[in-house]
Amino acid sequence: MFESVEVGNRLSKAAFKRIEPHMRHDLLDVQKELAVSPLSVIVIVGGAEGAGKGELVNLLLSWMDARGIDVQAFWDETDEERERPFMWRFWRVLPPTGRLGIFFGSWYTAPIIDRVFNRSDDADLDRALDRIVEFERMLADENVLVLKFWLHLSQDSQIKRLKKLEKHPDESWRVSKSDWKFVKKYKKFHRISERAIRRTNTAFAPWHLIEAEDVQYRTIVVTRTIRNAMQAALEALKNRPAEERRPDMPKPKKFNVLENLDQTQTLTEEEYEAQLTKYRSRIGFLARKLREKGLSMALVFEGPDAAGKGGAIRRVLSALDARQYRVVSVAAPTDEEKAHPYLWRFWRHLPRRGKITIFDRSWYGRVLVERIEGFCSPEDWKRAYGEINAFEEQLAESGIIVLKFWLQTTPEEQIERFRDRQTTPYKQYKITEEDWRNRDKWNAYEAAACEMIEKTGSDALPWIPIPANDKNFARISVMKAVAKALEDRLK
Amino acid sequence: MFESVEVGNRLSKAAFKRIEPHMRHDLLDVQKELAVSPLSVIVIVGGAEGAGKGELVNLLLSWMDARGIDVQAFWDETDEERERPFMWRFWRVLPPTGRLGIFFGSWYTAPIIDRVFNRSDDADLDRALDRIVEFERMLADENVLVLKFWLHLSQDSQIKRLKKLEKHPDESWRVSKSDWKFVKKYKKFHRISERAIRRTNTAFAPWHLIEAEDVQYRTIVVTRTIRNAMQAALEALKNRPAEERRPDMPKPKKFNVLENLDQTQTLTEEEYEAQLTKYRSRIGFLARKLREKGLSMALVFEGPDAAGKGGAIRRVLSALDARQYRVVSVAAPTDEEKAHPYLWRFWRHLPRRGKITIFDRSWYGRVLVERIEGFCSPEDWKRAYGEINAFEEQLAESGIIVLKFWLQTTPEEQIERFRDRQTTPYKQYKITEEDWRNRDKWNAYEAAACEMIEKTGSDALPWIPIPANDKNFARISVMKAVAKALEDRLK
Repeated sequence: MFESVEVGNRLSKAAFKRIEPHMRHDLLDVQKELAVSPLSVIVIVGGAEGAGKGELVNLLLSWMDARGIDVQAFWDETDEERERPFMWRFWRVLPPTGRLGIFFGSWYTAPIIDRVFNRSDDADLDRALDRIVEFERMLADENVLVLKFWLHLSQDSQIKRLKKLEKHPDESWRVSKSDWKFVKKYKKFHRISERAIRRTNTAFAPWHLIEAEDVQYRTIVVTRTIRNAMQAALEALKNRPAEERRPDMPKPKKFNVLENLDQTQTLTEEEYEAQLTKYRSRIGFLARKLREKGLSMALVFEGPDAAGKGGAIRRVLSALDARQYRVVSVAAPTDEEKAHPYLWRFWRHLPRRGKITIFDRSWYGRVLVERIEGFCSPEDWKRAYGEINAFEEQLAESGIIVLKFWLQTTPEEQIERFRDRQTTPYKQYKITEEDWRNRDKWNAYEAAACEMIEKTGSDALPWIPIPANDKNFARISVMKAVAKALEDRLK
Repeated sequence: MFESVEVGNRLSKAAFKRIEPHMRHDLLDVQKELAVSPLSVIVIVGGAEGAGKGELVNLLLSWMDARGIDVQAFWDETDEERERPFMWRFWRVLPPTGRLGIFFGSWYTAPIIDRVFNRSDDADLDRALDRIVEFERMLADENVLVLKFWLHLSQDSQIKRLKKLEKHPDESWRVSKSDWKFVKKYKKFHRISERAIRRTNTAFAPWHLIEAEDVQYRTIVVTRTIRNAMQAALEALKNRPAEERRPDMPKPKKFNVLENLDQTQTLTEEEYEAQLTKYRSRIGFLARKLREKGLSMALVFEGPDAAGKGGAIRRVLSALDARQYRVVSVAAPTDEEKAHPYLWRFWRHLPRRGKITIFDRSWYGRVLVERIEGFCSPEDWKRAYGEINAFEEQLAESGIIVLKFWLQTTPEEQIERFRDRQTTPYKQYKITEEDWRNRDKWNAYEAAACEMIEKTGSDALPWIPIPANDKNFARISVMKAVAKALEDRLK
């Protein structure tokens, strides 16, 4: 692969001087257009040490408007990053719409380096790369243009360049011991990089291999690629037919996991109180153990309005120390959230080690309310299942216990509760116009929920449907499931 | 002071039961009103260990809507927090408008504890407390209601309660060794807490001393205080006369620091290139040393449009590695930013140790464009000088070198440059309608700038006015000042 970029591409200084003003003009132009578009751009600068990556980025910042660019270096991870899933550090700095992010190091770095230094095997590498492909596909779908550059130097050139840098008084600091360590691993590094590039060289996020020997050549090729790709992406956005967003009204199957729930199960007040005390104490104990072990938990609560999500959440909270948990109530996204891919607003709330986040409604809104009400396009919610699965798998792998509760009442019970809320003064805050409106769409929501449970439930990331006609029974069922999941994991 | 809350206040269980439903109703009511108001609320829960703080917060979360509340515990500071000014950890979690934040531990904790364990002296403590008063005054001015509770237990009660907790199988974990360490320091802890409370017991953020012996009593008193204070604050907001926001047109003095600048100073291209090379190399070297020493830098650029801020910034950047700096271009605030006190959107960009943040326009917008254009009330910009000084002092104390550049051209030169921009294609992006409009307000801006320099410049946090009619001279002046500040600090 790399032989195709060891062919002696050069550009004369005269030609460079001729092209430069036009290129700068074009880049500023396209950046101006970007600023008011729904697109964002990530430029990944990878490749050999000594290939002029730093120089290139400094040049980009001087040719373009540095104020619209965020440079991210991922060498100095913080403990807040270490205590969350690997991709969190990238999610948190995804450029919002209108901006360009330049990444020194990226989601490729750790998988490649780990493999080079034998901290992982080929299977690990491939799994990580497949994750990346999924991630980049999501970015493409979410209007994030990902431009991946690989600056290549032959081994001889690399050694020559590092030596030259070392001699230059102003540049010698650029050369570190680890650079030389990499030179020694040159062949292996390139073999593994090649594997990574091949496996992630997709249509939606292709790699651009750049012969980095000649500074004029590499500069113009990279900037031209950026310009052309941005122009094309902006053009494509403009020409895209308006998204069709319309309510979806799927019909539920007669026999389904929610209809099958046994809604006759109840607990007397006495049983309830006894069980509550028991599980409260158990969860309290286990949650402290969770913290000691540095694990975390994410509890997701979904279900029709008035199904008792709030009440169930409160019972779980009553077992916990307020300093350990956070309740995230999912409401309309802020404009910063809207300027990022859909899952961004959930990534930002992921618990650190030892913490518990409770989501009152969640990322599943995409395949429930947004689908049914037509708040997003069919393409958006259809791809959401896969994106959500990838997301939750990352949580699980990083030591977050994920439990997803679906609290289900019958429609008759829901009506009862709406009536009740209208009369109990201190419960009034929970009822809104929307509650009544959604009632009409009961069937569509049930069908969407069943599809969601089918497509996103798994042994490791289970959906736990709870018959919720009896509040006592529902609350204890939730407590029991939380206790069991903690026990299973902590034993 | 504390004797007034060792008087045996109690509330019977029967009375509590009678009050509870009303209180819950009222709290939910007032929280609902809060949610749609421009107010936010911080509840600080301080006081003795074993006084039931955790219990109280758990109760608050169960009586109110936990989804509108963020509980913050400040015991587990992260390296991202440690690498920034002390108050950063609080700023980052200030509740946005409509929400309630409950703080376990607060900006009081470290000053008090440091004094108890003799890591600081009385003067340090008082200085920290005065800072807090300033901070809380700012919060009050920014519609953040701060409710400070001090749950008090007599020494005997504290020992009794800790012993009782220790015996209870579900509660014993609440008692740690450090709790007993505090009991031993009871007298000293109380003496110092008393000092802290007295000094920070202001009209805009008073302390509420609560006798914590009796659970019914302390619960009702605290919840009642919260309810009443929130009701009063919301009422006051509603009755507040509409803010008068009108453009301000101050007149500059004939002789002032900007008019006094010698605009005849120039550098030939040759001199410029030589100096640029020299300072670029020096700044590059010093910036690496800055990183090694774990210090940081914030460079602020202000000045009329077309004064050459962008060009000067680019020259500074050319000396730096792109991974070390970040350029923050201050534009319209996002809705998350608007939901927080004014300085919040600058706090969030403060550099970590070793990093450099360049602000292209800054928090000084408040006393410049917002003042002149009437984007905020006169009260807002008038108090901004003091708030900004307090802000920058904290940066300086935490090891951030702060330099503030004012680039000044003559109005004639500005006109020239506007014309030039219209004709040079790749400079066009910098010119907007606003540039022309602002030109008319030259005098008002000059007067505002002079007042700003007078009120916010100091030896440690200097304003550096730069005569900018000659771009070469201006750029080198900036480079020179950056180099000198780094040298002075790093020598």
